[in-house]
Amino acid sequence: MELVLTLTCPDQPGIVHAVTGAIANHGGNILESQQYGDATSKRFHMRVEAEGVGEVDQLRSQLGELAAKMDMRWSLTEAGRAVPTIIMASKEGHCLSDLLYHTHEGQIPIDVVAVVANHEDLRPLAEFYHTPFHHIPVTKETKHQAEDQLMALLEETGAELIVLARYMQILSDRVCEAMAGRIINIHHSFLPSFKGARPYQQAHARGVKLIGATAHYVTPDLDEGPIIEQDVIRVTHADSVPELVSQGQDVERRVLSRAVRWHAQNRVLLNGHSTVVFS
Amino acid sequence: MELVLTLTCPDQPGIVHAVTGAIANHGGNILESQQYGDATSKRFHMRVEAEGVGEVDQLRSQLGELAAKMDMRWSLTEAGRAVPTIIMASKEGHCLSDLLYHTHEGQIPIDVVAVVANHEDLRPLAEFYHTPFHHIPVTKETKHQAEDQLMALLEETGAELIVLARYMQILSDRVCEAMAGRIINIHHSFLPSFKGARPYQQAHARGVKLIGATAHYVTPDLDEGPIIEQDVIRVTHADSVPELVSQGQDVERRVLSRAVRWHAQNRVLLNGHSTVVFS
Amino acid sequence: MELVLTLTCPDQPGIVHAVTGAIANHGGNILESQQYGDATSKRFHMRVEAEGVGEVDQLRSQLGELAAKMDMRWSLTEAGRAVPTIIMASKEGHCLSDLLYHTHEGQIPIDVVAVVANHEDLRPLAEFYHTPFHHIPVTKETKHQAEDQLMALLEETGAELIVLARYMQILSDRVCEAMAGRIINIHHSFLPSFKGARPYQQAHARGVKLIGATAHYVTPDLDEGPIIEQDVIRVTHADSVPELVSQGQDVERRVLSRAVRWHAQNRVLLNGHSTVVFS
Amino acid sequence: MELVLTLTCPDQPGIVHAVTGAIANHGGNILESQQYGDATSKRFHMRVEAEGVGEVDQLRSQLGELAAKMDMRWSLTEAGRAVPTIIMASKEGHCLSDLLYHTHEGQIPIDVVAVVANHEDLRPLAEFYHTPFHHIPVTKETKHQAEDQLMALLEETGAELIVLARYMQILSDRVCEAMAGRIINIHHSFLPSFKGARPYQQAHARGVKLIGATAHYVTPDLDEGPIIEQDVIRVTHADSVPELVSQGQDVERRVLSRAVRWHAQNRVLLNGHSTVVFS
Repeated sequence: MELVLTLTCPDQPGIVHAVTGAIANHGGNILESQQYGDATSKRFHMRVEAEGVGEVDQLRSQLGELAAKMDMRWSLTEAGRAVPTIIMASKEGHCLSDLLYHTHEGQIPIDVVAVVANHEDLRPLAEFYHTPFHHIPVTKETKHQAEDQLMALLEETGAELIVLARYMQILSDRVCEAMAGRIINIHHSFLPSFKGARPYQQAHARGVKLIGATAHYVTPDLDEGPIIEQDVIRVTHADSVPELVSQGQDVERRVLSRAVRWHAQNRVLLNGHSTVVFS
Repeated sequence: MELVLTLTCPDQPGIVHAVTGAIANHGGNILESQQYGDATSKRFHMRVEAEGVGEVDQLRSQLGELAAKMDMRWSLTEAGRAVPTIIMASKEGHCLSDLLYHTHEGQIPIDVVAVVANHEDLRPLAEFYHTPFHHIPVTKETKHQAEDQLMALLEETGAELIVLARYMQILSDRVCEAMAGRIINIHHSFLPSFKGARPYQQAHARGVKLIGATAHYVTPDLDEGPIIEQDVIRVTHADSVPELVSQGQDVERRVLSRAVRWHAQNRVLLNGHSTVVFS
Repeated sequence: MELVLTLTCPDQPGIVHAVTGAIANHGGNILESQQYGDATSKRFHMRVEAEGVGEVDQLRSQLGELAAKMDMRWSLTEAGRAVPTIIMASKEGHCLSDLLYHTHEGQIPIDVVAVVANHEDLRPLAEFYHTPFHHIPVTKETKHQAEDQLMALLEETGAELIVLARYMQILSDRVCEAMAGRIINIHHSFLPSFKGARPYQQAHARGVKLIGATAHYVTPDLDEGPIIEQDVIRVTHADSVPELVSQGQDVERRVLSRAVRWHAQNRVLLNGHSTVVFS
Repeated sequence: MELVLTLTCPDQPGIVHAVTGAIANHGGNILESQQYGDATSKRFHMRVEAEGVGEVDQLRSQLGELAAKMDMRWSLTEAGRAVPTIIMASKEGHCLSDLLYHTHEGQIPIDVVAVVANHEDLRPLAEFYHTPFHHIPVTKETKHQAEDQLMALLEETGAELIVLARYMQILSDRVCEAMAGRIINIHHSFLPSFKGARPYQQAHARGVKLIGATAHYVTPDLDEGPIIEQDVIRVTHADSVPELVSQGQDVERRVLSRAVRWHAQNRVLLNGHSTVVFS
């Protein structure tokens, strides 16, 4: 069995030595590892893949002691473990389709325990992949009840990750807080950025040459949380607004799928308002 | 001799037929051509490279009549003609160096008639390429006189293009208006965009995964004029602020050099607040 | 109704004038057009999108006369017309999935009249998109009969395009010739290129930093026909062979979908052993 | 003072623990580190940046003992130390210009102790950057003497790296062996690859859509040694052969500069016939 250990703590001498000592103590051999100390935040970040650990519980216990001493936030999981995940969508299927396809092909280690959508359109797609589909409509009046349903579903399924695959609704603070660092959203982005409605129309009018997308964690108090991944695609003056939208969808789904894969592989560590991505 | 014809006019039937008829009338053969009608602005854009035209003046005269009838903005120039150009810079040489290098190699058809800088640092670089260097310092008090010098230099050299190669000073409206559509600037850009000073520090703190640059025409009344070209480069959490700056410089110089080459080749046509780039 | 006209002919003066004259004669207005004369092959290529043509048959007849005089290969079709298409696949669904998704979303103008596969694996995917699925197994012995079935299916469906979406079988010359310029294949590609089996293992052993894909027309007598589109994706030493395969699939499906879209939009013109892509 | 430690050894338990223990013993704090165990070659690779080490010689001595025990190839150097480097070129200046510019700006930690060229063309460029220029002509007859001069220059300058910046001559085995793993070359590359002379003409005739470059270590017995970095740039049918060459130069110089920077920062570790790049 391979294990993945990730940790973040205040920078201090001896972290790597202590952690790798614990792993070696229990027979572990390191396959791949990355460390990064942020000179600004003074926090140290580490990810280790190891094999051959005999007694995982004993390692866990030793790491717990170390974590207490060094003030670590840490996790130890089986490599390749499928993270129970709820994907939320609306009517557009490009991101959902990509996530379900890659998951089905074994390329993203998540277990999609539910697809939640505020419209019925994507039910066939979910069902094609044998994934439970929950239609939870949302209006201004029913938003609180809708989120109650979501919270119940989280509880019931044990989901550890929510992916907003073009969900088009804003989650309230209580959900954001309950799942802090475990909600991933995808957002179109442009250079320069455009305020207000219909960004693709604005981008077309402005003649941008690049269309982008940003995958980020969702936080209650911020317009846009820590960035996980970004990418762009080239466009030209001859691309109409629908073509820009289509190109934008293509980059959105690629960026979101990468972000979800890296998160599920424990490659993304929070570092204040940014991320460390050991890709 | 090869000719390049560019034109923009209100969309109407028969434009291409009339223009190519004029070219054929005078013995011209079309080598490469592109047309684009913008459904939103209802304007038509065309660029033609032709060879074999016998009497260029007669063609010019026939095109003049056509232009009057069809309300065209147009230009007819010799292909590969070196556009007399003033490059303005400050202390950083990455863009200037790239422009001079490519120009010297025959890869950008401009004739750099002067390098103008508000500091002395880049004199050796200009002189290495045998380019006249003018040190025109700028302070709040002397800004008007400094621009008088620039206007005189424009007059004297017959420059038809100003390239702001990280000049770091804002040109006043009178220069922008005198050279409307003929001043190109390079601007760093980020997703999301950052207000205020020290954008690279902000980008680092925010953990962006892409660093970009935008080359655009300078307009008096707008924050950022019509975009000519954009590109990005990938960065990671491990890139320090100086490394981000270095990466940013690399993308800046590439984007600016491309934009200047396309402008000098008459490949960039203004379309309201955006551009048509027949690259 | 919008029309798309494409043509290729020996370079000669007056082509654009004559063609746009015919269009203007019948009330057509040009929306977008591109021309390119290849200095090496001495062939001229043109693509026009026009609207407002009154009598299409009369235009077609006039173009026919012109084509005879100027030795043109040409086509005139309705813009956005769905090209009847057979997609051939084997067991891997990444390319098929992408093509069907984009087609279903209206982003690729093809009508998938049949999915043909030599295995049953992809039947559910085809059926999800309500596309007829034909299982035509192929062995050394049955290859000829299998191709008879394919030829019959071409006849029956009126398919004008075959897309090899990782079909993994070589089509015989009679199919290649019958559908010359109308079969698109996707091929992984590497720098440097690797001969022989298991290219991803070779690529991994060699430590390549890029994985690529090439979409090209299939020709009987050549290893690899005229290239339509290519792209690459970055990989690192840490990517295992399965990860390289997964990345490779991602670039394959993007490149193939782009190539098929451009072909179906009549944006790809053959130019000897290369292509002109008016993208 | 910051230190960089790199090492490669047969994979075995306890490597990281032992190495980080040695660093911690001498007061070192790890800033950034990466490890990678290649499952195929069974070799482990590690790079550590550390600060605060008190007695560097004592650390070196302890690491030496460890290296003997664990069969390590290792190096410990000051971070940011300028590697004494000889750049070899011929007539084309694009790579040399880029390397000298970035070095001068402090963005590549090398000390260019000599530029060696078999032509005089690039002397002014070298002299502009105050770099000794050695004109060593090479003919079939004088090749051995020319290499004697190079070997003497290596000796005299203490150069630890040779960069072939479009040198266009093949170094003989004795130089390759004397500087094994310390000669970097840049090579154009295409998909598909082209044998024989004039590759850009072949690429144009074939209508490739990407032009690439590969930076690699030079080895005596191989066509192309371990790859350090690769990149590509998009081209179209409308790019003439000189334009392809110009685009190719642009990607060559970027790829070579990146490869040299990573090598000089000790980020490139040999792993059999491939490399591990801790970029």
